[in-house]
Amino acid sequence: MIPPIILDKMESNRNRYVDELLSFLKIPSVSTLSHHGADVRRAAEWVFNSLKRLGLQASLHQTERHPIVYAESPPLPDKPTLLVYGHYDVQPPDPLDEWVSPPFTPQIRDGYVYARGASDDKGQFYTYLKAMEAIMAVEGGLPINVKVLVEGEEEIGSPNLGPFLRENAAILKADAVAISDSSQFVQGVPAITYGLRGLSYLQIDVQGPRFDLHSGSFGGMVQNPIMVLTNLLAALRHPDSTIAIPGFYDDTLEPAAWERDEMASLQFDEGRLREYLGVSELVGEPGYSPLERKSARPTLDVNGIWGGFSGEGAKTIIPARAGAKVSMRLVPNQKAARINALFRAFIEGLTPPGVEVRVTELHGAEPVLISRDQPSVKAAERAIEIGFGKAPVFIREGGSIPIVNLLAEILGSDSILMMGWGSPDDGAHSPNERFFLDDFHRGIRSAAALFYELSK
Amino acid sequence: MIPPIILDKMESNRNRYVDELLSFLKIPSVSTLSHHGADVRRAAEWVFNSLKRLGLQASLHQTERHPIVYAESPPLPDKPTLLVYGHYDVQPPDPLDEWVSPPFTPQIRDGYVYARGASDDKGQFYTYLKAMEAIMAVEGGLPINVKVLVEGEEEIGSPNLGPFLRENAAILKADAVAISDSSQFVQGVPAITYGLRGLSYLQIDVQGPRFDLHSGSFGGMVQNPIMVLTNLLAALRHPDSTIAIPGFYDDTLEPAAWERDEMASLQFDEGRLREYLGVSELVGEPGYSPLERKSARPTLDVNGIWGGFSGEGAKTIIPARAGAKVSMRLVPNQKAARINALFRAFIEGLTPPGVEVRVTELHGAEPVLISRDQPSVKAAERAIEIGFGKAPVFIREGGSIPIVNLLAEILGSDSILMMGWGSPDDGAHSPNERFFLDDFHRGIRSAAALFYELSK
Repeated sequence: MIPPIILDKMESNRNRYVDELLSFLKIPSVSTLSHHGADVRRAAEWVFNSLKRLGLQASLHQTERHPIVYAESPPLPDKPTLLVYGHYDVQPPDPLDEWVSPPFTPQIRDGYVYARGASDDKGQFYTYLKAMEAIMAVEGGLPINVKVLVEGEEEIGSPNLGPFLRENAAILKADAVAISDSSQFVQGVPAITYGLRGLSYLQIDVQGPRFDLHSGSFGGMVQNPIMVLTNLLAALRHPDSTIAIPGFYDDTLEPAAWERDEMASLQFDEGRLREYLGVSELVGEPGYSPLERKSARPTLDVNGIWGGFSGEGAKTIIPARAGAKVSMRLVPNQKAARINALFRAFIEGLTPPGVEVRVTELHGAEPVLISRDQPSVKAAERAIEIGFGKAPVFIREGGSIPIVNLLAEILGSDSILMMGWGSPDDGAHSPNERFFLDDFHRGIRSAAALFYELSK
Repeated sequence: MIPPIILDKMESNRNRYVDELLSFLKIPSVSTLSHHGADVRRAAEWVFNSLKRLGLQASLHQTERHPIVYAESPPLPDKPTLLVYGHYDVQPPDPLDEWVSPPFTPQIRDGYVYARGASDDKGQFYTYLKAMEAIMAVEGGLPINVKVLVEGEEEIGSPNLGPFLRENAAILKADAVAISDSSQFVQGVPAITYGLRGLSYLQIDVQGPRFDLHSGSFGGMVQNPIMVLTNLLAALRHPDSTIAIPGFYDDTLEPAAWERDEMASLQFDEGRLREYLGVSELVGEPGYSPLERKSARPTLDVNGIWGGFSGEGAKTIIPARAGAKVSMRLVPNQKAARINALFRAFIEGLTPPGVEVRVTELHGAEPVLISRDQPSVKAAERAIEIGFGKAPVFIREGGSIPIVNLLAEILGSDSILMMGWGSPDDGAHSPNERFFLDDFHRGIRSAAALFYELSK
């Protein structure tokens, strides 16, 4: 339960909470693009200053790339400790011309705030800061120990968080870890995520002739790098969407019968999804429902491709080179390193003469399954019921949160609470990303409730 | 024979001829890119003014896109008529960062002029204008009737030349047509081209979901447009480089035994070509030599591909759309319209559910074979021997010159003289396009010799 005086406090500050979020969303903290380096740093400082203003002991840690922000509440030796994780970096906003309002000029329409990072993850983790603020303003302190860890490299695979966690494992120790960087099942059906897929993300580069050639004068004599690439990419999957890399499925754990029953019982509206996406049909591996396919089964997607002439009209060339980005979503008990090795061997084995092919690993994360039989998971369940007025369902997510592996592995914490305030149609990673503001406020209430529930 | 006084005249004007060519090459007359429209017009006016200065009756004809320049020498009723064709438009220069000197800032290095259009086709057709100038300066007139036709849409398939030829067929009538828009066999081995491949150039667009999706949240549920595209492209060819479209080879005319013998006797240096191109191996259809494959056999190449994220690092999306440009080089007796229809049917038949696929025809040309038993071909052979000091070989080219079909079809002229002053390693359509200036001057001499040989 949250004391009513605190609920009142939060209610009367709703507009200010939103205004602060909007100012945060204006910072284009795109971690993957070097030219946004200063913006990413600005976002880190914004978070650092917010935590300092709460009266927490805050610090900003340099890494080789983007800073990590850390803060602690005043210690309460007899109380449990919750580590709150978030990330202040965002995905690139392109294609820019598909945004109704610019990605870093937040706009509120129909109760949603539209901006890159609104849901992933600025709007979600900020709820914990506002929950702390409201409680501390009324009570002068928190019912538990709260540690806050906010990184700026989540969207590029958190390369510098592992070393930081290792060096500071003792300081970061906690009884549970709260992460709000996922979604409700659908907007209005809150969820606790107990599974995540892993990720192998690679790039294939094909080099042919030293320069672009006239396709008339040379067509029939040289290997075409685009065609080599399309042949390689086509070979990665069978026509039924299953993955053709030998050994790829060796370690996959089948979803349990009770899980499949539970997933089947969720109100998944396939027609509404098709309409939202504008596609005539959902497509994927035979023998599994769409929900199973996107959460409990591995997949392979080409994320980008380039090569040759893409302008207006016709240019008759054989291009010098071509490339593609390919990612695989992994499930327990696949390991990213093994999948990368299988992928590389498969591509190398299929490379024809006359070109050079290079495979580069860009990003990886291991799949995750969390045990649901833990007191902290029960506390999270109650907190969401208080915050949203509705008990959460339990789901497995299709995306990856690499931090979850790191936290489990380095801090020895297997009580990781993934409570998504967002919604699957928020458009995380898409143009017109958004976050429902009512859920922002429900998130703040749920965060406050979690502090109280864990203090019991 | 060319009168010695005219040879002297040409010799003493070499530097001025080159200076004039450089000023022509500075005009970025890229016909396929709308924003170069004014530059293309500027190039047309440059040609028009050059012809007027020669004392020819010149005119500039508007079309729906880029102008056609036409000129005639003062009529000599008893003399044969030669129509000289050229094009003042050029290919796009990209990739720009691969040029050693900028594409429209001509630079002379080691006897070559480097610039877009140097060889294709500004430097080549300009030789006829300088040959006329030298003869007229000395003799006050030409030994034959010369008509000059220079278009600005060759690189986009000459859409407006056909209507112009049809309307002016009577005016344009000629005993032979000279076109210098191809290459010597290799630099130093001049050639007459008696065959050209045809062209079908199409674009495939694949539309999937309405916007880019998070590949974690949606991977396993939706058809990936890039993967649909790569599957379609991979299906177009068999692993041995033969084309998999049913019916594609139905109408192909096998090269004659004497042609294959003649091609085999040409000094084709495969090792030198591999080194020039920077590839470890030449690749193509089994059963044919590289020379046969690039001139007398049809081929299919992907000229460009695009879709999704191609920036730095990793972006985990399923893109909304993807596209590619595909061209096929055709040989006698294939017809572009039939090949386009077979291509479209093949792609449509393979389109899977969950995406929309659109095929657009961008450009076409029919293949050509010219009879070598004609007096004008013999005259051209002698003219090249005079201009280059060496008899030409006879070759079939891998590229297309759509005008050749139009001239043969509309003007009824089957005496088309394709005499390339360029060289196969000029980099037409590539970065660092160049033209050997000695061959520019040899071309001027050959053009002058052709006027005299045809007058006999």
